[in-house]
Amino acid sequence: MNEPVLARLHHLMTLREEVETLSSPVPWTPAADWTDDDAHLCLQLDVPGVDAESLEVQEDGETVTVAGQRPASERLLRGERPSGIFRRTLTFPEPVRPQSGQASLVHGVLTIRFEKRHPTISVPSSDLGREEQGE
Amino acid sequence: MNEPVLARLHHLMTLREEVETLSSPVPWTPAADWTDDDAHLCLQLDVPGVDAESLEVQEDGETVTVAGQRPASERLLRGERPSGIFRRTLTFPEPVRPQSGQASLVHGVLTIRFEKRHPTISVPSSDLGREEQGE
Repeated sequence: MNEPVLARLHHLMTLREEVETLSSPVPWTPAADWTDDDAHLCLQLDVPGVDAESLEVQEDGETVTVAGQRPASERLLRGERPSGIFRRTLTFPEPVRPQSGQASLVHGVLTIRFEKRHPTISVPSSDLGREEQGE
Repeated sequence: MNEPVLARLHHLMTLREEVETLSSPVPWTPAADWTDDDAHLCLQLDVPGVDAESLEVQEDGETVTVAGQRPASERLLRGERPSGIFRRTLTFPEPVRPQSGQASLVHGVLTIRFEKRHPTISVPSSDLGREEQGE
């Protein structure tokens, strides 16, 4: 007997979830690259439209945390761009010197350069013998 | 009898696909917002790290196409950021005046502003009666 009421409730709850999904901002997880240039590790993070003033970078021994935000577009007709606050903690791919990070923000890309604790000594690859591991 | 050979072949093909997936760049579909400011429609596209010189914008009556590229990071240790060429064709949410687009690229966000064919006349919402539609 209560089934129509329950179905109606369920329908209303689904509608509410859909409305909440529509109104909440798209989650904001900026894409990151780690690159290596022998003496440094570089972190690059895509943060288009984020003010330098809103960015915070914190480093502990093993990880670096980047936080920031950008305002949501107003009078949105169709929206895909994430907005609001983001916070990402990334683990260093290899050990870096504490407090060696240097950050810059250019064309919406945040680059942070860390000194490696164990810089790589690069070896030119020409005329080197090839070693193969047996299976 | 041929089954071990087939299984081995299948395994090799799977491996090859995995290697190709790893080496191909992350697909590049910049997120887009459409906003409305009464007289204009604005398209905003997240294109961090893309040079203005590499951007191309083309408008036909119903759609606008944006293309561009950014180079892949070199000596990548861990990569999430898309790279290479992108091309997106977006349909105008409502009619715009042909050739009215004005583009700017700021902090990695491409903004293109189009004049609406039918500008909205905004009405202040205070003291307006509320109408409700019956079910």
